[in-house]
Amino acid sequence: MIKEITSKDNNKLKHAASLKEAKYRKEYNEFLSEGKKSLDMALQAGNVKEIFTVKPIKNIPDDITQYLVKEELLKKVSSVKNPEGIVFVCNIVNRKPKKLNKVVYLDHINDPGNMGTIMRTALAFDYDAIIVSEGSCDVYNDKAVAASKGAIFSLPVLFGDINEFREGRQVIVSALNEKAVDINDLEKPKSFILVVGNEANGVTKEILDSADIATKIEIKNIDSLNVAIATGILMDHLR
Amino acid sequence: MIKEITSKDNNKLKHAASLKEAKYRKEYNEFLSEGKKSLDMALQAGNVKEIFTVKPIKNIPDDITQYLVKEELLKKVSSVKNPEGIVFVCNIVNRKPKKLNKVVYLDHINDPGNMGTIMRTALAFDYDAIIVSEGSCDVYNDKAVAASKGAIFSLPVLFGDINEFREGRQVIVSALNEKAVDINDLEKPKSFILVVGNEANGVTKEILDSADIATKIEIKNIDSLNVAIATGILMDHLR
Repeated sequence: MIKEITSKDNNKLKHAASLKEAKYRKEYNEFLSEGKKSLDMALQAGNVKEIFTVKPIKNIPDDITQYLVKEELLKKVSSVKNPEGIVFVCNIVNRKPKKLNKVVYLDHINDPGNMGTIMRTALAFDYDAIIVSEGSCDVYNDKAVAASKGAIFSLPVLFGDINEFREGRQVIVSALNEKAVDINDLEKPKSFILVVGNEANGVTKEILDSADIATKIEIKNIDSLNVAIATGILMDHLR
Repeated sequence: MIKEITSKDNNKLKHAASLKEAKYRKEYNEFLSEGKKSLDMALQAGNVKEIFTVKPIKNIPDDITQYLVKEELLKKVSSVKNPEGIVFVCNIVNRKPKKLNKVVYLDHINDPGNMGTIMRTALAFDYDAIIVSEGSCDVYNDKAVAASKGAIFSLPVLFGDINEFREGRQVIVSALNEKAVDINDLEKPKSFILVVGNEANGVTKEILDSADIATKIEIKNIDSLNVAIATGILMDHLR
Protein backbone atom coordinates (compact mmCIF):
# COMPACT_ATOMS: atom_id res chain seq x y z
CA MET A 1 0.00 0.00 0.00
CA ILE A 2 1.26 3.47 -0.89
CA LYS A 3 0.13 6.59 0.94
CA GLU A 4 1.31 10.14 0.74
CA ILE A 5 2.39 12.28 3.68
CA THR A 6 2.64 16.01 3.07
CA SER A 7 2.59 17.47 6.57
CA LYS A 8 5.44 17.47 9.04
CA ASP A 9 2.84 17.09 11.77
CA ASN A 10 1.65 13.74 10.46
CA ASN A 11 1.44 11.26 13.33
CA LYS A 12 3.16 8.38 11.52
CA LEU A 13 6.07 10.65 10.68
CA LYS A 14 6.26 12.03 14.22
CA HIS A 15 6.16 8.53 15.66
CA ALA A 16 9.00 7.41 13.39
CA ALA A 17 11.04 10.53 14.21
CA SER A 18 10.66 9.77 17.93
CA LEU A 19 12.55 6.51 17.34
CA LYS A 20 15.75 8.52 16.99
CA GLU A 21 15.72 8.55 20.78
CA ALA A 22 16.64 5.46 22.78
CA LYS A 23 13.78 5.84 25.24
CA TYR A 24 11.15 5.69 22.49
CA ARG A 25 12.90 2.75 20.81
CA LYS A 26 12.59 0.95 24.13
CA GLU A 27 8.99 2.04 24.67
CA TYR A 28 7.75 1.00 21.23
CA ASN A 29 10.19 -1.88 20.63
CA GLU A 30 11.01 -0.41 17.25
CA PHE A 31 14.00 1.21 15.58
CA LEU A 32 14.94 2.98 12.36
CA SER A 33 17.13 1.91 9.51
CA GLU A 34 18.01 3.45 6.14
CA GLY A 35 18.87 2.61 2.55
CA LYS A 36 17.82 0.05 -0.06
CA LYS A 37 20.38 -2.62 0.80
CA SER A 38 19.42 -2.68 4.47
CA LEU A 39 15.75 -2.63 3.50
CA ASP A 40 16.25 -5.76 1.41
CA MET A 41 17.92 -7.54 4.32
CA ALA A 42 15.20 -6.39 6.73
CA LEU A 43 12.45 -7.56 4.33
CA GLN A 44 14.12 -10.93 4.06
CA ALA A 45 14.09 -11.15 7.85
CA GLY A 46 10.43 -10.07 7.92
CA ASN A 47 11.30 -7.12 10.14
CA VAL A 48 9.89 -4.13 8.27
CA LYS A 49 6.92 -2.29 9.74
CA GLU A 50 6.60 0.72 7.46
CA ILE A 51 8.65 2.66 4.97
CA PHE A 52 9.17 6.35 4.30
CA THR A 53 10.45 6.93 0.80
CA VAL A 54 10.81 9.72 -1.75
CA LYS A 55 9.62 7.41 -4.54
CA PRO A 56 7.63 4.16 -4.69
CA ILE A 57 9.73 1.02 -4.21
CA LYS A 58 9.00 -2.10 -6.25
CA ASN A 59 8.28 -5.55 -4.83
CA ILE A 60 7.27 -4.50 -1.36
CA PRO A 61 4.67 -6.81 0.25
CA ASP A 62 1.29 -5.13 0.22
CA ASP A 63 0.82 -5.22 3.97
CA ILE A 64 3.82 -2.93 4.46
CA THR A 65 2.84 0.67 3.90
CA GLN A 66 5.08 2.92 1.86
CA TYR A 67 4.68 6.53 2.89
CA LEU A 68 5.65 8.80 0.04
CA VAL A 69 7.30 11.95 1.36
CA LYS A 70 9.26 14.88 -0.01
CA GLU A 71 13.00 14.91 0.76
CA GLU A 72 12.49 17.66 3.30
CA LEU A 73 10.14 15.47 5.33
CA LEU A 74 12.36 12.40 4.98
CA LYS A 75 15.04 14.35 6.84
CA LYS A 76 12.76 14.37 9.89
CA VAL A 77 13.17 10.60 10.22
CA SER A 78 16.67 10.22 8.79
CA SER A 79 19.85 10.45 10.85
CA VAL A 80 22.19 11.31 8.03
CA LYS A 81 22.84 14.63 6.32
CA ASN A 82 21.99 13.36 2.86
CA PRO A 83 19.51 10.51 3.21
CA GLU A 84 19.51 7.90 0.45
CA GLY A 85 15.76 8.31 0.00
CA ILE A 86 14.56 5.40 2.14
CA VAL A 87 14.02 5.27 5.90
CA PHE A 88 12.08 2.43 7.49
CA VAL A 89 10.70 1.37 10.85
CA CYS A 90 11.70 -2.09 12.09
CA ASN A 91 10.53 -4.27 14.91
CA ILE A 92 13.03 -5.11 17.60
CA VAL A 93 13.03 -8.89 17.46
CA ASN A 94 14.41 -11.18 20.13
CA ARG A 95 15.99 -13.68 17.79
CA LYS A 96 16.87 -16.96 19.51
CA PRO A 97 20.27 -18.32 18.47
CA LYS A 98 20.20 -21.92 17.22
CA LYS A 99 23.37 -22.68 19.13
CA LEU A 100 25.96 -20.77 21.13
CA ASN A 101 29.30 -22.22 20.10
CA LYS A 102 30.84 -19.05 18.70
CA VAL A 103 29.81 -15.94 20.53
CA VAL A 104 31.28 -12.48 20.95
CA TYR A 105 30.70 -10.62 24.19
CA LEU A 106 30.71 -6.83 23.99
CA ASP A 107 32.08 -5.64 27.32
CA HIS A 108 31.10 -1.96 27.73
CA ILE A 109 31.46 -1.07 24.06
CA ASN A 110 30.88 2.65 23.94
CA ASP A 111 31.00 3.67 20.32
CA PRO A 112 27.98 2.75 18.17
CA GLY A 113 30.13 2.69 15.03
CA ASN A 114 32.35 0.05 16.62
CA MET A 115 29.32 -1.89 17.83
CA GLY A 116 27.76 -1.97 14.36
CA THR A 117 31.05 -2.90 12.71
CA ILE A 118 31.52 -5.76 15.19
CA MET A 119 28.00 -7.01 14.37
CA ARG A 120 28.78 -6.92 10.65
CA THR A 121 32.05 -8.78 11.21
CA ALA A 122 30.45 -11.33 13.55
CA LEU A 123 27.85 -12.16 10.91
CA ALA A 124 30.53 -12.42 8.21
CA PHE A 125 32.48 -14.90 10.36
CA ASP A 126 29.32 -16.85 11.09
CA TYR A 127 29.05 -16.18 14.81
CA ASP A 128 25.96 -17.58 16.51
CA ALA A 129 25.18 -14.42 18.45
CA ILE A 130 26.55 -11.34 20.12
CA ILE A 131 26.02 -10.70 23.82
CA VAL A 132 25.87 -7.08 24.88
CA SER A 133 26.93 -6.19 28.42
CA GLU A 134 25.16 -3.66 30.56
CA GLY A 135 26.83 -0.28 30.11
CA SER A 136 27.38 -0.78 26.38
CA CYS A 137 25.80 1.69 23.97
CA ASP A 138 22.40 1.02 22.41
CA VAL A 139 22.47 -1.67 19.71
CA TYR A 140 19.61 0.11 17.93
CA ASN A 141 21.33 3.50 17.84
CA ASP A 142 21.27 4.85 14.27
CA LYS A 143 25.06 4.76 13.89
CA ALA A 144 25.24 1.18 15.15
CA VAL A 145 22.45 0.11 12.80
CA ALA A 146 24.12 1.86 9.85
CA ALA A 147 27.55 0.35 10.56
CA SER A 148 26.03 -3.13 10.92
CA LYS A 149 25.10 -2.95 7.21
CA GLY A 150 22.02 -5.08 7.80
CA ALA A 151 23.70 -7.60 10.12
CA ILE A 152 21.30 -6.42 12.80
CA PHE A 153 18.47 -8.10 10.87
CA SER A 154 19.82 -11.59 11.18
CA LEU A 155 22.43 -11.79 13.92
CA PRO A 156 20.89 -12.82 17.25
CA VAL A 157 21.58 -10.20 19.93
CA LEU A 158 21.51 -11.23 23.59
CA PHE A 159 21.85 -9.06 26.67
CA GLY A 160 23.28 -9.88 30.05
CA ASP A 161 26.23 -10.77 32.18
CA ILE A 162 28.93 -13.05 30.77
CA ASN A 163 28.59 -15.44 33.72
CA GLU A 164 25.11 -16.44 32.57
CA PHE A 165 26.70 -17.85 29.41
CA ARG A 166 30.01 -19.30 30.57
CA GLU A 167 29.06 -22.90 31.22
CA GLY A 168 30.58 -25.21 28.63
CA ARG A 169 32.35 -22.34 26.91
CA GLN A 170 35.94 -21.09 27.04
CA VAL A 171 36.24 -17.37 27.68
CA ILE A 172 38.86 -15.75 25.43
CA VAL A 173 40.16 -12.27 26.11
CA SER A 174 42.62 -10.08 24.31
CA ALA A 175 45.16 -8.88 26.87
CA LEU A 176 48.58 -7.32 26.86
CA ASN A 177 49.93 -9.14 29.92
CA GLU A 178 52.77 -11.64 29.88
CA LYS A 179 50.60 -14.72 30.24
CA ALA A 180 48.81 -13.92 27.00
CA VAL A 181 49.73 -16.25 24.13
CA ASP A 182 50.58 -14.76 20.76
CA ILE A 183 47.55 -14.83 18.51
CA ASN A 184 49.43 -17.02 16.03
CA ASP A 185 49.74 -19.72 18.68
CA LEU A 186 46.11 -19.53 19.72
CA GLU A 187 44.25 -22.82 19.65
CA LYS A 188 40.62 -22.66 18.73
CA PRO A 189 38.26 -24.09 21.35
CA LYS A 190 35.11 -25.87 20.18
CA SER A 191 32.82 -23.60 22.07
CA PHE A 192 33.87 -20.14 23.17
CA ILE A 193 32.98 -16.59 24.11
CA LEU A 194 35.30 -13.99 22.64
CA VAL A 195 35.32 -10.93 24.89
CA VAL A 196 36.07 -7.51 23.44
CA GLY A 197 36.43 -4.57 25.75
CA ASN A 198 35.75 -0.90 26.16
CA GLU A 199 37.51 1.54 23.81
CA ALA A 200 39.33 3.40 26.59
CA ASN A 201 39.66 0.83 29.37
CA GLY A 202 39.77 -2.56 27.65
CA VAL A 203 38.18 -5.66 29.11
CA THR A 204 36.74 -5.45 32.66
CA LYS A 205 39.27 -6.61 35.26
CA GLU A 206 36.98 -9.31 36.64
CA ILE A 207 36.61 -10.91 33.21
CA LEU A 208 40.33 -10.53 32.45
CA ASP A 209 41.22 -12.30 35.70
CA SER A 210 38.78 -15.16 35.22
CA ALA A 211 39.31 -15.76 31.49
CA ASP A 212 40.29 -19.23 30.30
CA ILE A 213 42.50 -18.00 27.47
CA ALA A 214 44.34 -14.71 27.10
CA THR A 215 45.83 -13.82 23.75
CA LYS A 216 47.58 -10.81 22.26
CA ILE A 217 48.06 -9.25 18.88
CA GLU A 218 51.65 -8.03 18.61
CA ILE A 219 51.73 -4.36 17.61
CA LYS A 220 54.29 -1.55 17.47
CA ASN A 221 54.52 2.25 17.71
CA ILE A 222 51.07 2.79 19.24
CA ASP A 223 49.18 1.74 22.39
CA SER A 224 46.37 -0.26 20.89
CA LEU A 225 44.31 -1.23 17.89
CA ASN A 226 40.76 -0.02 17.39
CA VAL A 227 38.48 -2.54 19.14
CA ALA A 228 36.59 -3.50 15.98
CA ILE A 229 39.89 -4.08 14.14
CA ALA A 230 41.19 -6.24 16.99
CA THR A 231 37.89 -8.16 16.96
CA GLY A 232 38.18 -8.77 13.22
CA ILE A 233 41.71 -10.11 13.56
CA LEU A 234 40.74 -12.32 16.51
CA MET A 235 37.72 -13.70 14.66
CA ASP A 236 39.87 -14.45 11.64
CA HIS A 237 42.26 -16.46 13.83
CA LEU A 238 39.46 -18.27 15.64
CA ARG A 239 37.85 -19.88 12.65
CA MET B 1 53.44 30.85 27.43
CA ILE B 2 49.86 31.07 28.69
CA LYS B 3 47.40 33.67 27.45
CA GLU B 4 43.72 34.06 28.03
CA ILE B 5 41.07 34.43 25.34
CA THR B 6 37.67 35.69 26.46
CA SER B 7 36.07 36.86 23.20
CA LYS B 8 34.62 34.65 20.52
CA ASP B 9 35.85 37.23 18.01
CA ASN B 10 39.49 36.69 18.94
CA ASN B 11 41.55 36.26 15.78
CA LYS B 12 43.53 33.24 16.99
CA LEU B 13 40.30 31.47 17.86
CA LYS B 14 38.67 32.38 14.56
CA HIS B 15 41.72 31.21 12.64
CA ALA B 16 41.68 27.87 14.44
CA ALA B 17 37.92 27.47 13.90
CA SER B 18 38.44 28.04 10.17
CA LEU B 19 40.59 24.88 10.09
CA LYS B 20 37.42 22.82 10.43
CA GLU B 21 37.09 23.42 6.69
CA ALA B 22 39.28 21.58 4.19
CA LYS B 23 39.96 24.68 2.09
CA TYR B 24 41.49 26.55 5.03
CA ARG B 25 43.51 23.50 6.09
CA LYS B 26 44.98 23.53 2.62
CA GLU B 27 45.51 27.27 2.56
CA TYR B 28 47.29 27.44 5.92
CA ASN B 29 48.86 23.96 5.87
CA GLU B 30 47.47 23.34 9.34
CA PHE B 31 44.88 21.11 10.94
CA LEU B 32 43.15 20.56 14.27
CA SER B 33 43.42 17.72 16.72
CA GLU B 34 41.97 17.10 20.18
CA GLY B 35 42.66 15.43 23.51
CA LYS B 36 45.65 14.93 25.81
CA LYS B 37 46.86 11.64 24.34
CA SER B 38 46.99 13.01 20.80
CA LEU B 39 48.63 16.17 22.11
CA ASP B 40 51.41 14.10 23.68
CA MET B 41 52.01 12.29 20.38
CA ALA B 42 51.94 15.56 18.45
CA LEU B 43 54.39 17.17 20.89
CA GLN B 44 56.72 14.24 20.51
CA ALA B 45 56.59 14.71 16.75
CA GLY B 46 57.20 18.45 17.19
CA ASN B 47 53.98 19.22 15.34
CA VAL B 48 52.08 21.47 17.75
CA LYS B 49 51.61 25.12 16.86
CA GLU B 50 49.25 26.33 19.56
CA ILE B 51 46.84 24.96 22.11
CA PHE B 52 43.37 25.95 23.24
CA THR B 53 42.60 24.55 26.66
CA VAL B 54 40.18 25.02 29.53
CA LYS B 55 43.00 24.72 32.07
CA PRO B 56 46.79 25.10 31.93
CA ILE B 57 48.66 21.97 30.81
CA LYS B 58 51.95 21.03 32.44
CA ASN B 59 55.23 20.42 30.63
CA ILE B 60 54.41 22.28 27.43
CA PRO B 61 57.48 23.85 25.77
CA ASP B 62 57.47 27.58 26.38
CA ASP B 63 57.39 28.53 22.69
CA ILE B 64 53.99 26.86 22.25
CA THR B 65 51.25 29.21 23.41
CA GLN B 66 48.43 27.81 25.54
CA TYR B 67 45.28 29.85 25.09
CA LEU B 68 43.07 29.52 28.12
CA VAL B 69 39.42 29.56 27.10
CA LYS B 70 36.06 28.82 28.69
CA GLU B 71 34.34 25.61 27.60
CA GLU B 72 31.88 27.58 25.54
CA LEU B 73 34.69 29.07 23.43
CA LEU B 74 36.50 25.73 23.13
CA LYS B 75 33.42 24.44 21.35
CA LYS B 76 34.13 26.92 18.54
CA VAL B 77 37.29 25.02 17.64
CA SER B 78 36.23 21.52 18.67
CA SER B 79 34.47 19.08 16.36
CA VAL B 80 32.91 16.94 19.07
CA LYS B 81 29.83 17.53 21.18
CA ASN B 82 31.64 17.23 24.48
CA PRO B 83 35.24 18.29 23.94
CA GLU B 84 37.82 16.78 26.28
CA GLY B 85 39.12 20.25 27.14
CA ILE B 86 42.06 20.40 24.74
CA VAL B 87 42.09 21.38 21.05
CA PHE B 88 45.34 22.17 19.26
CA VAL B 89 46.59 23.43 15.92
CA CYS B 90 49.14 21.26 14.11
CA ASN B 91 51.35 21.81 11.13
CA ILE B 92 50.77 19.60 8.13
CA VAL B 93 54.20 17.99 7.71
CA ASN B 94 55.37 16.17 4.62
CA ARG B 95 57.15 13.35 6.41
CA LYS B 96 59.53 11.43 4.15
CA PRO B 97 59.36 7.66 4.67
CA LYS B 98 62.75 6.04 5.39
CA LYS B 99 61.85 3.16 3.10
CA LEU B 100 58.83 1.93 1.16
CA ASN B 101 58.76 -1.82 1.67
CA LYS B 102 55.38 -2.06 3.36
CA VAL B 103 52.88 0.44 2.10
CA VAL B 104 49.11 0.65 2.06
CA TYR B 105 47.41 2.42 -0.83
CA LEU B 106 44.02 3.98 -0.08
CA ASP B 107 42.05 3.74 -3.32
CA HIS B 108 39.15 6.22 -3.10
CA ILE B 109 38.52 5.74 0.61
CA ASN B 110 35.47 7.83 1.33
CA ASP B 111 34.82 7.61 5.04
CA PRO B 112 37.17 9.63 7.27
CA GLY B 113 36.57 7.23 10.18
CA ASN B 114 37.82 4.35 8.03
CA MET B 115 40.76 6.42 6.84
CA GLY B 116 41.83 7.28 10.38
CA THR B 117 41.39 3.71 11.59
CA ILE B 118 43.50 2.43 8.68
CA MET B 119 46.24 4.94 9.60
CA ARG B 120 46.15 3.74 13.22
CA THR B 121 46.34 0.11 12.11
CA ALA B 122 49.12 0.80 9.58
CA LEU B 123 51.23 2.40 12.31
CA ALA B 124 50.52 -0.50 14.68
CA PHE B 125 51.70 -2.98 12.02
CA ASP B 126 54.77 -0.87 11.31
CA TYR B 127 53.94 0.18 7.76
CA ASP B 128 56.41 2.59 6.18
CA ALA B 129 53.74 4.92 4.79
CA ILE B 130 50.23 5.24 3.46
CA ILE B 131 49.56 6.50 -0.04
CA VAL B 132 46.29 8.33 -0.56
CA SER B 133 44.70 8.26 -4.02
CA GLU B 134 43.03 11.23 -5.58
CA GLY B 135 39.31 11.10 -4.82
CA SER B 136 39.85 9.86 -1.26
CA CYS B 137 38.55 11.96 1.62
CA ASP B 138 40.78 14.49 3.36
CA VAL B 139 43.39 12.91 5.64
CA TYR B 140 43.21 15.96 7.92
CA ASN B 141 39.42 15.86 8.34
CA ASP B 142 38.56 15.95 12.06
CA LYS B 143 37.03 12.46 12.07
CA ALA B 144 40.05 10.97 10.30
CA VAL B 145 42.43 12.69 12.71
CA ALA B 146 40.39 11.49 15.72
CA ALA B 147 40.18 7.89 14.47
CA SER B 148 43.93 7.84 13.76
CA LYS B 149 44.52 8.21 17.53
CA GLY B 150 47.71 10.14 16.92
CA ALA B 151 49.03 7.92 14.12
CA ILE B 152 48.78 10.97 11.87
CA PHE B 153 51.69 12.51 13.80
CA SER B 154 54.20 9.86 12.86
CA LEU B 155 52.99 7.83 9.89
CA PRO B 156 54.29 9.26 6.59
CA VAL B 157 51.40 10.13 4.27
CA LEU B 158 52.02 10.29 0.53
CA PHE B 159 49.64 11.34 -2.23
CA GLY B 160 49.45 10.21 -5.81
CA ASP B 161 48.76 7.49 -8.31
CA ILE B 162 49.75 3.93 -7.50
CA ASN B 163 51.77 3.64 -10.70
CA GLU B 164 54.29 6.16 -9.40
CA PHE B 165 55.14 3.70 -6.64
CA ARG B 166 54.90 0.29 -8.29
CA GLU B 167 58.49 -0.29 -9.36
CA GLY B 168 60.10 -3.03 -7.29
CA ARG B 169 56.92 -3.62 -5.33
CA GLN B 170 54.23 -6.30 -5.62
CA VAL B 171 50.71 -4.90 -5.74
CA ILE B 172 48.32 -6.88 -3.52
CA VAL B 173 44.56 -6.48 -3.81
CA SER B 174 41.69 -8.01 -1.95
CA ALA B 175 39.28 -9.41 -4.52
CA LEU B 176 36.38 -11.81 -4.61
CA ASN B 177 37.16 -13.35 -7.99
CA GLU B 178 38.18 -16.95 -8.57
CA LYS B 179 41.84 -16.26 -9.18
CA ALA B 180 42.19 -14.78 -5.72
CA VAL B 181 44.13 -16.99 -3.29
CA ASP B 182 42.73 -17.61 0.15
CA ILE B 183 44.32 -15.25 2.64
CA ASN B 184 45.67 -18.22 4.60
CA ASP B 185 47.72 -19.26 1.57
CA LEU B 186 49.04 -15.78 0.91
CA GLU B 187 52.80 -15.51 0.69
CA LYS B 188 54.33 -12.33 1.94
CA PRO B 189 56.41 -10.46 -0.65
CA LYS B 190 59.50 -8.56 0.54
CA SER B 191 58.27 -5.29 -0.78
CA PHE B 192 54.63 -4.60 -1.48
CA ILE B 193 51.76 -2.16 -1.81
CA LEU B 194 48.55 -3.35 -0.19
CA VAL B 195 45.59 -1.74 -1.97
CA VAL B 196 42.33 -1.17 -0.12
CA GLY B 197 39.33 0.07 -2.01
CA ASN B 198 36.30 2.29 -1.82
CA GLU B 199 33.56 1.40 0.67
CA ALA B 200 30.86 0.96 -1.96
CA ASN B 201 32.76 -0.01 -5.10
CA GLY B 202 35.90 -1.78 -3.92
CA VAL B 203 39.25 -1.48 -5.66
CA THR B 204 39.38 0.43 -8.97
CA LYS B 205 39.07 -1.96 -11.94
CA GLU B 206 42.36 -0.86 -13.46
CA ILE B 207 44.26 -1.69 -10.28
CA LEU B 208 42.37 -4.98 -9.83
CA ASP B 209 43.26 -6.05 -13.35
CA SER B 210 46.92 -5.14 -13.08
CA ALA B 211 47.57 -6.41 -9.55
CA ASP B 212 50.36 -8.93 -8.94
CA ILE B 213 48.55 -10.79 -6.18
CA ALA B 214 44.82 -11.10 -5.51
CA THR B 215 43.69 -12.53 -2.21
CA LYS B 216 40.37 -13.05 -0.48
CA ILE B 217 39.06 -13.30 3.03
CA GLU B 218 36.43 -16.04 3.15
CA ILE B 219 33.19 -14.72 4.66
CA LYS B 220 29.57 -15.83 4.98
CA ASN B 221 26.04 -14.39 5.28
CA ILE B 222 26.93 -10.86 4.15
CA ASP B 223 28.42 -9.16 1.07
CA SER B 224 31.57 -7.71 2.51
CA LEU B 225 33.61 -6.71 5.51
CA ASN B 226 34.12 -3.10 6.49
CA VAL B 227 37.22 -1.87 4.61
CA ALA B 228 39.20 -1.05 7.76
CA ILE B 229 38.44 -4.50 9.19
CA ALA B 230 39.55 -6.16 5.95
CA THR B 231 42.70 -4.02 5.99
CA GLY B 232 43.47 -5.08 9.57
CA ILE B 233 43.09 -8.75 8.72
CA LEU B 234 45.22 -8.40 5.59
CA MET B 235 47.95 -6.55 7.48
CA ASP B 236 47.95 -9.21 10.16
CA HIS B 237 48.51 -11.89 7.50
CA LEU B 238 51.20 -9.89 5.71
CA ARG B 239 53.62 -9.54 8.59
